[in-house]
Amino acid sequence: MRVILCGFGVVGQSLVKLFNSRSEDLYAQYGLKPRVVGVCDSKGSAVDTSGLELEKLVEVKKKFGTVKNYGKTKNNMSGIDMIRNLDADVVIETTASNYKDAEPGMSHIITAMKRRMHVVSVNKGPLALAFPSLMELATYNQVIFKFSGTVGGGTPILDYAKNSLRGERITSFAGILNGTTNYILSNMTNGLSFDSALKDAKNRGYVEADESLDLDGLDAAAKLVILANWIMGMKVTLPDIDCKGIRNVTVNDIRNASKNNCAIKLIASCNRELVVKPKEVSVDDPLCVNGTLNAIAFTSEHSGTQTIIGKGAGGMETASSILRDLLDIRQEIAKI
Amino acid sequence: MRVILCGFGVVGQSLVKLFNSRSEDLYAQYGLKPRVVGVCDSKGSAVDTSGLELEKLVEVKKKFGTVKNYGKTKNNMSGIDMIRNLDADVVIETTASNYKDAEPGMSHIITAMKRRMHVVSVNKGPLALAFPSLMELATYNQVIFKFSGTVGGGTPILDYAKNSLRGERITSFAGILNGTTNYILSNMTNGLSFDSALKDAKNRGYVEADESLDLDGLDAAAKLVILANWIMGMKVTLPDIDCKGIRNVTVNDIRNASKNNCAIKLIASCNRELVVKPKEVSVDDPLCVNGTLNAIAFTSEHSGTQTIIGKGAGGMETASSILRDLLDIRQEIAKI
Repeated sequence: MRVILCGFGVVGQSLVKLFNSRSEDLYAQYGLKPRVVGVCDSKGSAVDTSGLELEKLVEVKKKFGTVKNYGKTKNNMSGIDMIRNLDADVVIETTASNYKDAEPGMSHIITAMKRRMHVVSVNKGPLALAFPSLMELATYNQVIFKFSGTVGGGTPILDYAKNSLRGERITSFAGILNGTTNYILSNMTNGLSFDSALKDAKNRGYVEADESLDLDGLDAAAKLVILANWIMGMKVTLPDIDCKGIRNVTVNDIRNASKNNCAIKLIASCNRELVVKPKEVSVDDPLCVNGTLNAIAFTSEHSGTQTIIGKGAGGMETASSILRDLLDIRQEIAKI
Repeated sequence: MRVILCGFGVVGQSLVKLFNSRSEDLYAQYGLKPRVVGVCDSKGSAVDTSGLELEKLVEVKKKFGTVKNYGKTKNNMSGIDMIRNLDADVVIETTASNYKDAEPGMSHIITAMKRRMHVVSVNKGPLALAFPSLMELATYNQVIFKFSGTVGGGTPILDYAKNSLRGERITSFAGILNGTTNYILSNMTNGLSFDSALKDAKNRGYVEADESLDLDGLDAAAKLVILANWIMGMKVTLPDIDCKGIRNVTVNDIRNASKNNCAIKLIASCNRELVVKPKEVSVDDPLCVNGTLNAIAFTSEHSGTQTIIGKGAGGMETASSILRDLLDIRQEIAKI
């Protein structure tokens, strides 16, 4: 399976390490032999149609801060050029999410689909802004579009709701979908002010470069868009979400919640309306998890409410979700 | 799809109601049209090769306490006779679990498989005593053997671990797999003595007719056997479990645990060894759920620890798991 990898940050590097450490097992157990023919980052690309050396890729990135120094001459090719000119079966999109124009991820995905390449995206931007039309484009071009890692990181929330609960009707759901704000709110519950809690989260590297994505609820709202489309069959995008972040949550609010045996959590919910906002949650509710954990509770018609809890982020965790998507694509292709 | 239903207690009746209420949707969405050709309970049977009337079945059971009065003459046929003499595609086994000889469920399942019928079992007994050999028998006779409802009721724990986490290695797991003992322990944490908590649980109908199945950990151990075989590829049966129940847990133990910010829970765990025993769990651990809830935490190689929480029992919930298994069988058959 020839793979183009767009973006070579923490997730991309973790994926390459995972390919390397599990190559024998992946082939023996699943018949999957990923051959990375191209990798791009914001500065340039590395290309080898017979397959890049994975260990070398990571070394070059570490040494030069970009993969463009992989070959003998520096390769300034952009991601788009790579997708336009290389032959590959799958494009993996791992560049950073933005919710203004979702570039360069949006163009990567659209170009790949038009060239009849399957796509795995862990970039939420394109999905948040254009889920319904991207799904249509995939169908039209008869390619598989997977995005397990966009919600829950390594915790297979989308798959659980879609497959493990098949035959069941999910009537509503609510979740803590952003680990950073959950970490901040948990620390505020433990006595820190908003500013100190935010500072601590920043020191630990939990906060996005653009802190608004976390604090104003955009990241949670993007995940809500994906869940609403994929699980509930809605056709919505980011502007359809009623979204409020955590900037106005005060230590006083949290104290009042504590008195009711509750904690304040940034809850993304789908119950007819799509809302992201801080809410009181009983500390006895399985949904009420602390630290950077994510949690989501699906309420179904006959199987009651079921909660899944896991790490919502992390390089290796998200890479493992990409691997699952590749295995699915491998299996689907084999059927044809 | 012709179906024989063994056992017509809460789960069996819920299933029939589910068939009835969702008949149109099941056919339109999944092409599934279940035709119940035979039902047995401990007193007799109801048979109609062109399909029993589902509402009438429930009425007859309610009025006479058995389905044998369904036809014009009382039908004393046993479950085994029914499986031997009727033609059907699937046998659904819902009789009560016992861990001595697992009868009559064991004979129902074996007879069905030998007659090349697919089997769905929510009866844990046969699986606890003979999981490896039943799987072999199913393979030998080329039939599908499903048992989603045996662990977690309507919460698809087995499917999650097997399918949603495919491509990932689960290295260990630990869970609260018995809602009754969790209810008792939760109430003891709230100040009740063991005896009062047990009495309350009995009054609510949470305790098995043979209370030892709950209190001595047998129900949890049976589920651990199923998980160990299905998820971890082990070949074990009930005697391989190191099992200790909750009878010796004192209010004092619980007080001491509270001092460490912990609660005592009956934990079934697989980490090289297979153990069921009361353990201290931090109240901050997502696994630490209260009341009748079940919870299980899977630790995987790359995706971290993931916890699933849900109702572990209930007639309609367990019936919904049977429906999922039937949909799987329907899909598998369609492939052939």
